[in-house]
Amino acid sequence: MKNVVEVQPNDGKLAILIPGLGAVATTLIAGVDAILAGRNAPVGSYAEMGHLPTADGERVRVKEAVPLASLEDVVFGGWDIYEGNAYQAARRAKVLSNEDLSACQEALERVKPMPAVFDHEYVKNIDGPNVKSAKSKWDLAESIVADIKGFMDANGCDRAVGVWCASTERYIEPGPVHQTVSAFENGLKENHPDISPAMIYAYAFVKSGVPLANGAPNLALDIPAIVEFAKREGVAIAGKDFKTGQTLMKTMISPGLAARMIGVEGWYSTNILGNTDGAVLDDPGSFKTKEVSKLSVIESILEPELYPELYGNITHRVRIDYYPPRGDNKEGWDNIDIFGWMNYPMQIKINFLCRDSILAAPVALDLALFMDLAQRAGMSGVQDWLSFYFKSPQRNGDVMPPHDLFKQQEDLFVTLREISSRSSVKAPKIASAS
Amino acid sequence: MKNVVEVQPNDGKLAILIPGLGAVATTLIAGVDAILAGRNAPVGSYAEMGHLPTADGERVRVKEAVPLASLEDVVFGGWDIYEGNAYQAARRAKVLSNEDLSACQEALERVKPMPAVFDHEYVKNIDGPNVKSAKSKWDLAESIVADIKGFMDANGCDRAVGVWCASTERYIEPGPVHQTVSAFENGLKENHPDISPAMIYAYAFVKSGVPLANGAPNLALDIPAIVEFAKREGVAIAGKDFKTGQTLMKTMISPGLAARMIGVEGWYSTNILGNTDGAVLDDPGSFKTKEVSKLSVIESILEPELYPELYGNITHRVRIDYYPPRGDNKEGWDNIDIFGWMNYPMQIKINFLCRDSILAAPVALDLALFMDLAQRAGMSGVQDWLSFYFKSPQRNGDVMPPHDLFKQQEDLFVTLREISSRSSVKAPKIASAS
Amino acid sequence: MKNVVEVQPNDGKLAILIPGLGAVATTLIAGVDAILAGRNAPVGSYAEMGHLPTADGERVRVKEAVPLASLEDVVFGGWDIYEGNAYQAARRAKVLSNEDLSACQEALERVKPMPAVFDHEYVKNIDGPNVKSAKSKWDLAESIVADIKGFMDANGCDRAVGVWCASTERYIEPGPVHQTVSAFENGLKENHPDISPAMIYAYAFVKSGVPLANGAPNLALDIPAIVEFAKREGVAIAGKDFKTGQTLMKTMISPGLAARMIGVEGWYSTNILGNTDGAVLDDPGSFKTKEVSKLSVIESILEPELYPELYGNITHRVRIDYYPPRGDNKEGWDNIDIFGWMNYPMQIKINFLCRDSILAAPVALDLALFMDLAQRAGMSGVQDWLSFYFKSPQRNGDVMPPHDLFKQQEDLFVTLREISSRSSVKAPKIASAS
Amino acid sequence: MKNVVEVQPNDGKLAILIPGLGAVATTLIAGVDAILAGRNAPVGSYAEMGHLPTADGERVRVKEAVPLASLEDVVFGGWDIYEGNAYQAARRAKVLSNEDLSACQEALERVKPMPAVFDHEYVKNIDGPNVKSAKSKWDLAESIVADIKGFMDANGCDRAVGVWCASTERYIEPGPVHQTVSAFENGLKENHPDISPAMIYAYAFVKSGVPLANGAPNLALDIPAIVEFAKREGVAIAGKDFKTGQTLMKTMISPGLAARMIGVEGWYSTNILGNTDGAVLDDPGSFKTKEVSKLSVIESILEPELYPELYGNITHRVRIDYYPPRGDNKEGWDNIDIFGWMNYPMQIKINFLCRDSILAAPVALDLALFMDLAQRAGMSGVQDWLSFYFKSPQRNGDVMPPHDLFKQQEDLFVTLREISSRSSVKAPKIASAS
Repeated sequence: MKNVVEVQPNDGKLAILIPGLGAVATTLIAGVDAILAGRNAPVGSYAEMGHLPTADGERVRVKEAVPLASLEDVVFGGWDIYEGNAYQAARRAKVLSNEDLSACQEALERVKPMPAVFDHEYVKNIDGPNVKSAKSKWDLAESIVADIKGFMDANGCDRAVGVWCASTERYIEPGPVHQTVSAFENGLKENHPDISPAMIYAYAFVKSGVPLANGAPNLALDIPAIVEFAKREGVAIAGKDFKTGQTLMKTMISPGLAARMIGVEGWYSTNILGNTDGAVLDDPGSFKTKEVSKLSVIESILEPELYPELYGNITHRVRIDYYPPRGDNKEGWDNIDIFGWMNYPMQIKINFLCRDSILAAPVALDLALFMDLAQRAGMSGVQDWLSFYFKSPQRNGDVMPPHDLFKQQEDLFVTLREISSRSSVKAPKIASAS
Repeated sequence: MKNVVEVQPNDGKLAILIPGLGAVATTLIAGVDAILAGRNAPVGSYAEMGHLPTADGERVRVKEAVPLASLEDVVFGGWDIYEGNAYQAARRAKVLSNEDLSACQEALERVKPMPAVFDHEYVKNIDGPNVKSAKSKWDLAESIVADIKGFMDANGCDRAVGVWCASTERYIEPGPVHQTVSAFENGLKENHPDISPAMIYAYAFVKSGVPLANGAPNLALDIPAIVEFAKREGVAIAGKDFKTGQTLMKTMISPGLAARMIGVEGWYSTNILGNTDGAVLDDPGSFKTKEVSKLSVIESILEPELYPELYGNITHRVRIDYYPPRGDNKEGWDNIDIFGWMNYPMQIKINFLCRDSILAAPVALDLALFMDLAQRAGMSGVQDWLSFYFKSPQRNGDVMPPHDLFKQQEDLFVTLREISSRSSVKAPKIASAS
Repeated sequence: MKNVVEVQPNDGKLAILIPGLGAVATTLIAGVDAILAGRNAPVGSYAEMGHLPTADGERVRVKEAVPLASLEDVVFGGWDIYEGNAYQAARRAKVLSNEDLSACQEALERVKPMPAVFDHEYVKNIDGPNVKSAKSKWDLAESIVADIKGFMDANGCDRAVGVWCASTERYIEPGPVHQTVSAFENGLKENHPDISPAMIYAYAFVKSGVPLANGAPNLALDIPAIVEFAKREGVAIAGKDFKTGQTLMKTMISPGLAARMIGVEGWYSTNILGNTDGAVLDDPGSFKTKEVSKLSVIESILEPELYPELYGNITHRVRIDYYPPRGDNKEGWDNIDIFGWMNYPMQIKINFLCRDSILAAPVALDLALFMDLAQRAGMSGVQDWLSFYFKSPQRNGDVMPPHDLFKQQEDLFVTLREISSRSSVKAPKIASAS
Repeated sequence: MKNVVEVQPNDGKLAILIPGLGAVATTLIAGVDAILAGRNAPVGSYAEMGHLPTADGERVRVKEAVPLASLEDVVFGGWDIYEGNAYQAARRAKVLSNEDLSACQEALERVKPMPAVFDHEYVKNIDGPNVKSAKSKWDLAESIVADIKGFMDANGCDRAVGVWCASTERYIEPGPVHQTVSAFENGLKENHPDISPAMIYAYAFVKSGVPLANGAPNLALDIPAIVEFAKREGVAIAGKDFKTGQTLMKTMISPGLAARMIGVEGWYSTNILGNTDGAVLDDPGSFKTKEVSKLSVIESILEPELYPELYGNITHRVRIDYYPPRGDNKEGWDNIDIFGWMNYPMQIKINFLCRDSILAAPVALDLALFMDLAQRAGMSGVQDWLSFYFKSPQRNGDVMPPHDLFKQQEDLFVTLREISSRSSVKAPKIASAS
């Protein structure tokens, strides 16, 4: 049964708190500044630009259908292992042109990273000086809790929301320490090696009553301990791994092939990227985490169990190669071997010259806005209606959320309509140029 | 209000009558033989392989949900300007390997084309000897009516359905002669030059009470005279232009870009193909017809009126080049210039090495089966629920059918569920290997 | 017999005078400034960076082998139909980033265009105010002669060289007025419509004793009148059409296929570009000129007369499409249908995301430096040893220069070695960062 | 000093003996049969189709310039780990259509593999029953010697030549056992583990006085022991690794970029292939061998030592992925990041849909014909003038042969002209359709 409680209003300031003030986060901050200044529209943000089809076919601006936080009320903060402010981080990230960075310099310089929880065992290929030290993981979690409270107080924020934008941690199998809240809390106190930094952040956010979305493929929000804790504390969580380049394309094209009963014999995907994410993924442990996140997409959409002749024997390969010349401009090349009538083979090749952070930033923004909305709407635990934004959407209970982008969109619509029906306060100040 | 009449059963033989026994038609006939012989599954045919999601989320085989004709009950016939039988035509078309052709030789040789209605003014770059001559277009129409009846009698068929698979006629603007049934009938008698061969077939099919789908971009079924005639006679019609290669891809990808509010600055599409279709389209008049059919797709999906900043200024170019080395293997190259957050540009390039007739044959089959179903379900006039199969779906009244493949699929599901609710006879003999 | 006269020294200042101060010219000027300031190496310039293999296999810097003008001694000037200085033109051209333009602003602002000879009949899709008017084409030529002299005097230049960088004129067939110097001079006086602006410049340069290279596909230097005039006056000329993107690739790959006796069945080339050149080529007359320049390349290299089974039946198509989203960043897509052992087909697809002016600027520089050298070396008439730089190299007498990039390179080497053997003054000041 | 001995005539039958009767070898045999029957020209074979430019610019058919063996005099034989004849092997390889295989069935069935020397330690991912067993590697070598003699006697052959067409062995570092003939012979007797099957064949061919070319990247002909042995015995050897798809393209394009001084920042190459070669290369040991062979190509051509600003910092990545849907049709995708004037970046992307064995077969044929010629011309040891055909051309003494395809072609011409000058017997029977 859906909750009939009224949605809380979007009054007051909202802190968007980001573990990992790197390429994605600084691009997000710069873009919000540009939108507020009227320099460009919030391109890529469904929450800011999109429409919601009502049950009777009308189209209403999302911002008029549900009470989202206004961008004017947002204050950005976060943690990072590097010390420089967000302007310095953005220059290092080389996502934006110097001209665009200059225009946003003031807004970026305001954001200074708090010292991060970091463990080199979980992310091999980077290191930095701005790191917390404490005698236990429990103390690290408490330090994050204090950071959140301190930031909100200092900035006069009524609410906060978190979006994980830090690097991909190495793959680990969930173990006993991840199964219950109490086992996990003991593990924090005993410095259990299977508790990764991302999990420490996750625990601290939930403990602070602050919803959190996970933009990377780590399992921090998937482990039973955190899911249970979030439900108990009434906190919304959602993951995982921003769906941006190649996987986004896969979830557009696979449903189309399936709709037409076109067979698939093989799908070969290679990615080249030269940013920190690429360097991190050059470590086999981190790549494993990513690969697991990427491989299941096609199979879930094509349903080989229903169509064994069409999809029962697919060779699916995914490669990610660190290639510095590409910088933050990720490039994907996909070769899809399909077959049609009388089994005749055909080929589709897709070369996607994309930009990692440019695609991820509006996803991070939408997640922040919708997670804040969900929290105000009294929705706790896994927000599987936000699968639209994730490469590897987290399940809520037994039902697997879809990978098909269009089914995900429908799920998004359904929930937004439901929230809309419970909202009396609507129509925030419209800050964007759109 | 939907009709509550019960759907007529799928007993007896069904004639599939095809103007244009060329590459698509012979590939269709060969494939149906291969399916009946168990050599391969009906890949690409939703009607034969697909499932229908019920209102409560179950999945039922389409063939079990609605009483489609069985492939075992199908008899193929048609018209062509060349004299040879379908085996000879298939060898000339070079779509299928000699091995596959040998296996289907008997089935193909059975199909001998009736003399065609043809007018060199409408299709410049081909010519052939197997052509009807008569003193008026009226007499030509009467001759088609007689052909249909003769074929059904000779083959013991209870029902028939037509699928236009002949070449693209040159572009013409609809004029007064196309506006009413009586003006059109006068035009037939007076040999009005604006009545094309495809229109003569359309008139004759409707007059014979036989539903007709239009796989080419000509306007034969779109003109008011034929729409009115079809409604009056209670005949189902549907068009136009099989959605196969590049346009199929466009209607998968555009909805995905729109879902994510990713801007589009330009879309450049070029096609190379070397078959008769390519030769015909080398004539500017025929190309114009095709271009009109292809250009509106993106705009319709992206809704620039709602999103002027994202889609208000798209450079959209479509090229088709006759390139003999490619044979029937059409190839498309698309370059899509998109932009994201802060207007940063990105590019998607899609190279589709497809096969024209391999993609079109199952579309022709599905249309034949669904049009026969619609006719038995008492549905007359334009069948806009079949937009899923068309590059340029025909409107029924004022409402434009969608171009978005996934909305088209939903429309297909809705109507099939409605027909299913009226069907007592279901579950045809399942002939395919699947 | 080669000239045994000694090569004149590279003392004094050299004016590089450019009809068409647009994208290519301003990029050239900006880049020379950046090189002189040590901001980057002269990438793409063989004259500035390259080595000459000596007969005994040693490698000598070109600048040490022959007495080229030093970049420090170069002064730029030119003509354009727009009034703004080169900085304003460069901003309009959008080739270089604002940051790079700022660094070169002073050097660019120094260059102000002289009023151009222009005729809208020859270039349809552009127009501008900075145009000479005179009562005859003869007077226009005299005005150019005066411009050249005036510029050299004002800037203290000892020598000058011209490089045509203006737009592609429409295609015309050479007629009687182009056959002899006297017919041409009469034509100038009588305002003969078949004398294009480029021809007027060509006449004026030769009359001024200033060598001229032609970077566009117009026939200005090819007509017998100008060839005869250049020989008579002892002036070096060379054409035509800078070899930059797709044709450059063709002349690399075709020789490789030919070396290996790999057959070619088809070559489909499409180009999209959005700069003024693209707009100009959207006029069929101008495109025809370009197409003629582009089509002969492959045939000349593959020698179908020697290898009819391999190259006797090639479908070669070239498309250029004006596509504004691409700006100055030209993009080519080539599909090459090849065949090998037992005639089995294979395909090569090349997607070249290039930049028109970035590729053309160093070609223009090399031509200026080598034409000045040729003039000082006493070489008059057509300089066919510079075919390396041209899409459609101009013949000198009966012998066709090669299109094969590697044979062109060998011709360049041979002539440079010959000039080197006659040079006593060498080793100019080396200004570049390299 | 070049040898002035006259070239021996091309009388009598020539055995072409092939270790590895798989995809390449059977495609070669089928194609020679098709050429002799006049079904197609010897496409891809320079020896059969090409012309030699003489010193004074004339062009002479290679077959008229030097006394090559006639295809009519060739008898094929070989060794394989599978038992079936070449027809069965060819069907398994799936390179040729069933139609083409039927036409060559008789010629292929005549060729039955002799039992192979095989060691699973060197090639992990395949295995087969038709394998020699002996108590020492010395005995295995003797068995090959006996096979060669037996085959020549049985088929009335006057001469023989070998071409290695078997799988890629795992990478090994040369050790002491490979340094001298005597150490190697001791190693054979003592079953030294570092002596691979390919080395045993190499030893046996040299011992038999039969020249051998190496089409795979193993080091069999590179080790000092074999080089020394070949010189001592007066036997011609040449290696290694047929230059076919992606590397062939690299050696066409790199020289072109270098000619124009266009900078290279990165070169990313990925290959997908699904044949036995792909399966073998899925083993990291075998891939290492291939990777070493592929990586040095670009650097050797671009000369970073001369042009540090242009080529001093290239990220070069090579991937090979086993991808069964592709079968024998190898596919390469290259992304080349280049930069031009003012360091502006551009990109070239090459998608090569090639066919491994179709490209390799004429290379194997040319090597057989030219190695036989070299042997008759009295040329012993490493034939570095055949670098044109190899991915990793073997050095003869200290001089590295070029990778640049056009310099390799020039080396080929120079040596053929030299041999031609010593040949009195020329103009063999011309068997081909050309």
